[in-house]
Amino acid sequence: MSQATNQSWGGRFSEPTDAFVARFTASVTFDQRLARQDIQGSIAHATMLSRVGVLTGEERDAIINGLTEIQGEIERGEFNWSVPLEDVHMNIEARLTDKIGITGKKLHTGRSRNDQVATDIRLFMRDEIDVIEVELKRLREGMIELADREADTIMPGFTHLQTAQPVTFGHHLLAWQEMLARDHERLLDCRKRVNVLPLGAAALAGTTYPIDRHVTAELLGFDRPAENSLDAVSDRDFAIEFTSFASILMMHLSRMSEELVLWTSAQFDFIDLPDRFCTGSSIMPQKKNPDVPELVRGKTGRVYGHLMGLLTLMKSQPLAYNKDNQEDKEPLFDAVDTVRDCLKAFADMVPAIEPKKDSMYEAARRGFSTATDLADYLVRKGVAFRDAHEIVGQSVAYGLKTQKDLSEMSLEELQQFSSIIEQDVFDVLTLEGSVAARNHIGGTAPNQVRAAAQRAREALSLLQGQA
Amino acid sequence: MSQATNQSWGGRFSEPTDAFVARFTASVTFDQRLARQDIQGSIAHATMLSRVGVLTGEERDAIINGLTEIQGEIERGEFNWSVPLEDVHMNIEARLTDKIGITGKKLHTGRSRNDQVATDIRLFMRDEIDVIEVELKRLREGMIELADREADTIMPGFTHLQTAQPVTFGHHLLAWQEMLARDHERLLDCRKRVNVLPLGAAALAGTTYPIDRHVTAELLGFDRPAENSLDAVSDRDFAIEFTSFASILMMHLSRMSEELVLWTSAQFDFIDLPDRFCTGSSIMPQKKNPDVPELVRGKTGRVYGHLMGLLTLMKSQPLAYNKDNQEDKEPLFDAVDTVRDCLKAFADMVPAIEPKKDSMYEAARRGFSTATDLADYLVRKGVAFRDAHEIVGQSVAYGLKTQKDLSEMSLEELQQFSSIIEQDVFDVLTLEGSVAARNHIGGTAPNQVRAAAQRAREALSLLQGQA
Amino acid sequence: MSQATNQSWGGRFSEPTDAFVARFTASVTFDQRLARQDIQGSIAHATMLSRVGVLTGEERDAIINGLTEIQGEIERGEFNWSVPLEDVHMNIEARLTDKIGITGKKLHTGRSRNDQVATDIRLFMRDEIDVIEVELKRLREGMIELADREADTIMPGFTHLQTAQPVTFGHHLLAWQEMLARDHERLLDCRKRVNVLPLGAAALAGTTYPIDRHVTAELLGFDRPAENSLDAVSDRDFAIEFTSFASILMMHLSRMSEELVLWTSAQFDFIDLPDRFCTGSSIMPQKKNPDVPELVRGKTGRVYGHLMGLLTLMKSQPLAYNKDNQEDKEPLFDAVDTVRDCLKAFADMVPAIEPKKDSMYEAARRGFSTATDLADYLVRKGVAFRDAHEIVGQSVAYGLKTQKDLSEMSLEELQQFSSIIEQDVFDVLTLEGSVAARNHIGGTAPNQVRAAAQRAREALSLLQGQA
Amino acid sequence: MSQATNQSWGGRFSEPTDAFVARFTASVTFDQRLARQDIQGSIAHATMLSRVGVLTGEERDAIINGLTEIQGEIERGEFNWSVPLEDVHMNIEARLTDKIGITGKKLHTGRSRNDQVATDIRLFMRDEIDVIEVELKRLREGMIELADREADTIMPGFTHLQTAQPVTFGHHLLAWQEMLARDHERLLDCRKRVNVLPLGAAALAGTTYPIDRHVTAELLGFDRPAENSLDAVSDRDFAIEFTSFASILMMHLSRMSEELVLWTSAQFDFIDLPDRFCTGSSIMPQKKNPDVPELVRGKTGRVYGHLMGLLTLMKSQPLAYNKDNQEDKEPLFDAVDTVRDCLKAFADMVPAIEPKKDSMYEAARRGFSTATDLADYLVRKGVAFRDAHEIVGQSVAYGLKTQKDLSEMSLEELQQFSSIIEQDVFDVLTLEGSVAARNHIGGTAPNQVRAAAQRAREALSLLQGQA
Repeated sequence: MSQATNQSWGGRFSEPTDAFVARFTASVTFDQRLARQDIQGSIAHATMLSRVGVLTGEERDAIINGLTEIQGEIERGEFNWSVPLEDVHMNIEARLTDKIGITGKKLHTGRSRNDQVATDIRLFMRDEIDVIEVELKRLREGMIELADREADTIMPGFTHLQTAQPVTFGHHLLAWQEMLARDHERLLDCRKRVNVLPLGAAALAGTTYPIDRHVTAELLGFDRPAENSLDAVSDRDFAIEFTSFASILMMHLSRMSEELVLWTSAQFDFIDLPDRFCTGSSIMPQKKNPDVPELVRGKTGRVYGHLMGLLTLMKSQPLAYNKDNQEDKEPLFDAVDTVRDCLKAFADMVPAIEPKKDSMYEAARRGFSTATDLADYLVRKGVAFRDAHEIVGQSVAYGLKTQKDLSEMSLEELQQFSSIIEQDVFDVLTLEGSVAARNHIGGTAPNQVRAAAQRAREALSLLQGQA
Repeated sequence: MSQATNQSWGGRFSEPTDAFVARFTASVTFDQRLARQDIQGSIAHATMLSRVGVLTGEERDAIINGLTEIQGEIERGEFNWSVPLEDVHMNIEARLTDKIGITGKKLHTGRSRNDQVATDIRLFMRDEIDVIEVELKRLREGMIELADREADTIMPGFTHLQTAQPVTFGHHLLAWQEMLARDHERLLDCRKRVNVLPLGAAALAGTTYPIDRHVTAELLGFDRPAENSLDAVSDRDFAIEFTSFASILMMHLSRMSEELVLWTSAQFDFIDLPDRFCTGSSIMPQKKNPDVPELVRGKTGRVYGHLMGLLTLMKSQPLAYNKDNQEDKEPLFDAVDTVRDCLKAFADMVPAIEPKKDSMYEAARRGFSTATDLADYLVRKGVAFRDAHEIVGQSVAYGLKTQKDLSEMSLEELQQFSSIIEQDVFDVLTLEGSVAARNHIGGTAPNQVRAAAQRAREALSLLQGQA
Repeated sequence: MSQATNQSWGGRFSEPTDAFVARFTASVTFDQRLARQDIQGSIAHATMLSRVGVLTGEERDAIINGLTEIQGEIERGEFNWSVPLEDVHMNIEARLTDKIGITGKKLHTGRSRNDQVATDIRLFMRDEIDVIEVELKRLREGMIELADREADTIMPGFTHLQTAQPVTFGHHLLAWQEMLARDHERLLDCRKRVNVLPLGAAALAGTTYPIDRHVTAELLGFDRPAENSLDAVSDRDFAIEFTSFASILMMHLSRMSEELVLWTSAQFDFIDLPDRFCTGSSIMPQKKNPDVPELVRGKTGRVYGHLMGLLTLMKSQPLAYNKDNQEDKEPLFDAVDTVRDCLKAFADMVPAIEPKKDSMYEAARRGFSTATDLADYLVRKGVAFRDAHEIVGQSVAYGLKTQKDLSEMSLEELQQFSSIIEQDVFDVLTLEGSVAARNHIGGTAPNQVRAAAQRAREALSLLQGQA
Repeated sequence: MSQATNQSWGGRFSEPTDAFVARFTASVTFDQRLARQDIQGSIAHATMLSRVGVLTGEERDAIINGLTEIQGEIERGEFNWSVPLEDVHMNIEARLTDKIGITGKKLHTGRSRNDQVATDIRLFMRDEIDVIEVELKRLREGMIELADREADTIMPGFTHLQTAQPVTFGHHLLAWQEMLARDHERLLDCRKRVNVLPLGAAALAGTTYPIDRHVTAELLGFDRPAENSLDAVSDRDFAIEFTSFASILMMHLSRMSEELVLWTSAQFDFIDLPDRFCTGSSIMPQKKNPDVPELVRGKTGRVYGHLMGLLTLMKSQPLAYNKDNQEDKEPLFDAVDTVRDCLKAFADMVPAIEPKKDSMYEAARRGFSTATDLADYLVRKGVAFRDAHEIVGQSVAYGLKTQKDLSEMSLEELQQFSSIIEQDVFDVLTLEGSVAARNHIGGTAPNQVRAAAQRAREALSLLQGQA
């Protein structure tokens, strides 16, 4: 069999594909990853074709048995992938025809590779989304439990990386958790739009065979058939939407990573990461490097890049399918793998974070972190906020000069700046007093943190019912 | 009053801000666009503060009256924006204090610019999303009605920009409409995540005042207060998610634009755009350029760019607020304006598209667009699909050589390639027969197009109930 | 040997790396691609160390022989890559020590993996740039020769995809060639900045051994040692600059691809691409799809994506080396491969483009493409340009109504719009007259095109002396 | 005068532009920024036209005088920009015709807005590049001088943000300077490709007038006329290349900013920034925020975004000019402004950095930063490097347990891990000894830093001759 007739479209052609071109345009080296979904889709298609009378029951069974055997061959690594056969679809179909003869050729009735690959990739994405969701839940759970345990642990809260006000470590962890809660919602919103059946669109316009797309949709667990055949074969929104979800998630992980890297530095010294999440240096024997957060932070770029790549890919493409679209798979596969692995690494690592509570507390005590509390104290005593701000500003300037924190000044020293200040000021200048006073929904008071952890736990468990 | 004391934070500082730095770091030149929302938020905050007893009723009323007057000054263009006052918040607050004296300073009790700006921008986004949704609906409606009218108009369907199979123009328009339907869903999903109240987070940790965030949320029409103060002041997910929605939408508009540009070319000649959507040339008097679709296609880049810019902005930022975040506004404002204007331009233009039906029909008749129908005919007569494909491939090669479309060959000519072909083949080789035969949900048959238009109309009207 | 001691940095660690973390952080699965350069760099390093007396001649020879053997093992596919050994460097060093014993451990004297990998990747990029340059030259040469052959072939020139003025096909091809000439310059500019030696920077600060970096630079063909050790280990500008070059090049190829796709459509029908650069359809037997240009156009996205990925990667990284940087390799490798393959495909394909001259000529004759020539004619007769433009605009409006091109109107018809028009107008209304009249440097006149081709040939040959 | 005839292309059109469309497609609101360059180009064009005899000397003078007056009107803010006149070109031409009558219409002879705008924007970019270069030089100079002053100041060098080895602050600053030196080269490489004349390309194919493009090029200071008219009007490489330069530069500034933010934190406390480069908080009186570096870091995103936007804009555009290209200006203008302002802010700020030398020194003394020196000491005594690494690893583990740095251990304690260690070990365990020992080109030894500063100074002064 010549190379030209090896291919599914050779009749009109007067010369075979150039050897380099054949390799350049083939996708089987990467789209073989869709083999399981390709077979799953083909079995559903064959089942539907037999229900509407296009295939006999025997033909259907021969096809399903043949495909099942091929699935086994692939799983056992015995399948011989061929680049001249271009892609996963033609490889499997050729093997099926080898196995069951001419009946194998009937499987392609009423479909095209255009709707076939669109179906495969949606099945794939649905599977991967569900795996990713498991890791995302695990990470959220780990964060919530750690936050609950650390609801009383005081650390400095920063803005502009300058000490701002004391917060609790649990509160900080719940800020991370809120980011992930939104990611979780976005993932499920994306899943809705993934779970739609393109099959039946054929090449672009539908098919003349009496297919029943509702049957196929039901067999494959899709919510509904896609509404328009031209759109069904050319839509890659779900790939972009997933990659957008992934980019925002990676952005969140990069923020957490940045903080983990800061916190494990000698300068911050807020936490320890267990050795098993770190690596050393080939030249500096003392080093213990926070490799996992650094690498996750670095991987943000590749996911952002895939998002831009896919947006660029789809820009200005006329309907319907164009060869350009073959380029959707590699970035999507890599985004899926990156997100899954980064979530897994974090889900393993976050519960093992060991806060160095003394060091955190000491840092919060420096840096005038209760200056706002002093201002609020003055306001409660009747000073206008803007004036109170000015008074405290002067106290801080004095503290900088004398190397004293506000709580370390004597009453007399404080009274230099306002005669309204009395002995009870020292209640609000403690870290414990400061955090406890932020006692409203969303505030850092320990009891609010515990209540927020409980609400987060409940929200997550409600979501679990869904997926 | 010196420049240093002009500012809300001067007490601790020993020298005034450098003049260039003051201009470089000020945001009032662009964030004054948030003035209406800033006042709206301040009125709600003052109202809440009076309910919980932090402000008296008189103070509240003075503040609200003052702010209402300022709103009027801004609307009439009488407000004097000051760069040394840095931003929209300080400009309005300073003016309020000018007007009502020391009471004006009390407005800032229990909040910070960090939660204030986060609230303003969410109010702004909610307003803009609602405006955008109106244009998006109008465009969808225009498309659906045009599609319904053109359900029988035959044109070539393309894959790889090569004639593939005949489709109807209505079917093609509904493919566009499906893209927009997904955008519409994404916009509403994004709106849910926009509509959450940051106010009460104060600088980062909450406040020591006895605020009631549920009251403020209700007054401003937010679904709920944000759960975590650190997250509330540093979260810009909604900006990225909106820009991601906008990027996908612009990608869709770029695809439609590309087709409109192709279709108005002399080579395609499928449609006319009314002169009012086109411009001419300063040097070539014959030109009528499809400026609107070209410009919309070109504007895709700026929205993609803003998405990349915002993702970059947020990467690796430690909690909570950093000055970097000031950079969120300009890309977001520009994305909002671009999307709104492009949708408006399309909503005006699409219903005015004039299909050149003869030209479309003639193009569909060329290019062997019913080759698949011939193959399907052969399959129905018992030929295996892959063999039928080969037979048709040979017929096409013959047609290319003899310059005849399939429907122009004689029965004898066709029978050269398969003796199974009979007189009834000419029923399937007509364009009308071809499109009518794709008669299943999502297919291009005119009755399917009309049914799909009706379903789209209903889906859209259900959605309208929502927003 | 335990896993912990397998690693080059284990002494300080109390537990082995987590198994998933080991896989997650290892780079050997992709950085083994740098093996040849790693060995090349190590041989130069050992040679330098012996010259300065840190290694004996025997040690140097043992190391070089061992590395040469390892090179052979790798080339023959006999090398056993180990993930627990993390990366290409440790894999090769461990194998060297297996082979030659304790002397193998001395190779790492005075260097670190930080400067080692920076050196490897620069050697790799230099090699790949030189390969890419060969393909780029070949493509430019093919374009210049085709342009020269087609200097007289008339086609419509477009702006806004509307027929504007006649041009020659050769002129159009030279426009493409100019894009590539700039890419070529950028590639060579980038190469200058690649060709600098990081080795000797050690981990970040230099080394206490008496190394001579000028010797190493010379041995490896680098222009000079990098000036600053902190910068040398953390600089990835060359990767971004290369990817930026690659993005602009891909943008150019996408523009050419877009035109090739348009020109092979039935609607344009300007060229034929040989079958060996096209593929067919599994369902539509008549299709001949321009796969190569479509796929190249599609690959633009992945390269843009890698550029964004690398820019994101480096954003805000503090000095010096961070683990994030491990993420530089995969996007760079893929950008290199993509650019090289796309250039090769184009260099093979472009000379095989077959212009359909009659079809091009006919298209140029339609669409009033000589309207500007009529305007210029009027100006030469004394009419102000803006008035001439108006006169021609009316002639075109008349032509649209009567379905006549300007050259098809009678003198009387033309004189309706201006009595100044005389018989000699028909000289300027021909396509040949129109193109010949644009007779200045950069113009489309055939003799200008031939002269430009000659200049391009010479410029390219001068460049060839350089590389 | 009706709106339709107001425009330069109205003759062929039967209805005026839609009012919204007119506003949507007009560019004058932003391209008026090119007015000075537009007039500069027009004066050169008129001069050339008179030299070749297309304009008389009187016509030329009338045009030049008129344009000079218009320039004055614009500079004095008296020019009345009109949106119906679309763009800067038509606004100026219309005003010229108002002023000097019909001769004004002759200015457009032999050119088109397509080559006119391409010329304007190249003139603009050349001007802006030269301004940017001045700031870039000033920043480099400031860095070099500070580095020279701080050649002996010891600080910890980091990898993975973990203390690695001591370096000097001067060495660190020169690492920054190396980044900028590469940016400087890239800027000048880009300038070469900007400085080419498009004028004469006319709409796309050249012109039938006997223009002399070498004259125009010389008058405007361009190196040469562009080689190909189709390319000249559609090439925007220079915009992308500039934005790519700008992105890499901003990446560098973001890295410096990140370090400045870290160093001004209470945790690092390595430097002070003068108050004039910082701002405070409206709620936290103690705050002094490093606003300038934060904002610069944040601005990185907008420049990356513009790069992505421009790459997207140009992707897949067929030749020659398309309306899409109007979208090139706003991102380019903003990139130019951002880069110029960020460089200015840094050039002002960097020389004012005040290192806190004691704090830096103390930080370097912690963290086992001389561990590598101990390993090198052992190697010099004959221990294999990998074994030495292991010995030091054990010493560090002991130090962590006993809270002692290596230099704080007794000789007996050190000898626990290797009997080879002798009294002279304490020479290499000091910070001064450590930095002085890295005494080769690129190393951190103070004399190397001073020599590197001198080389940098010379390289910069050589470059200054160029620009």
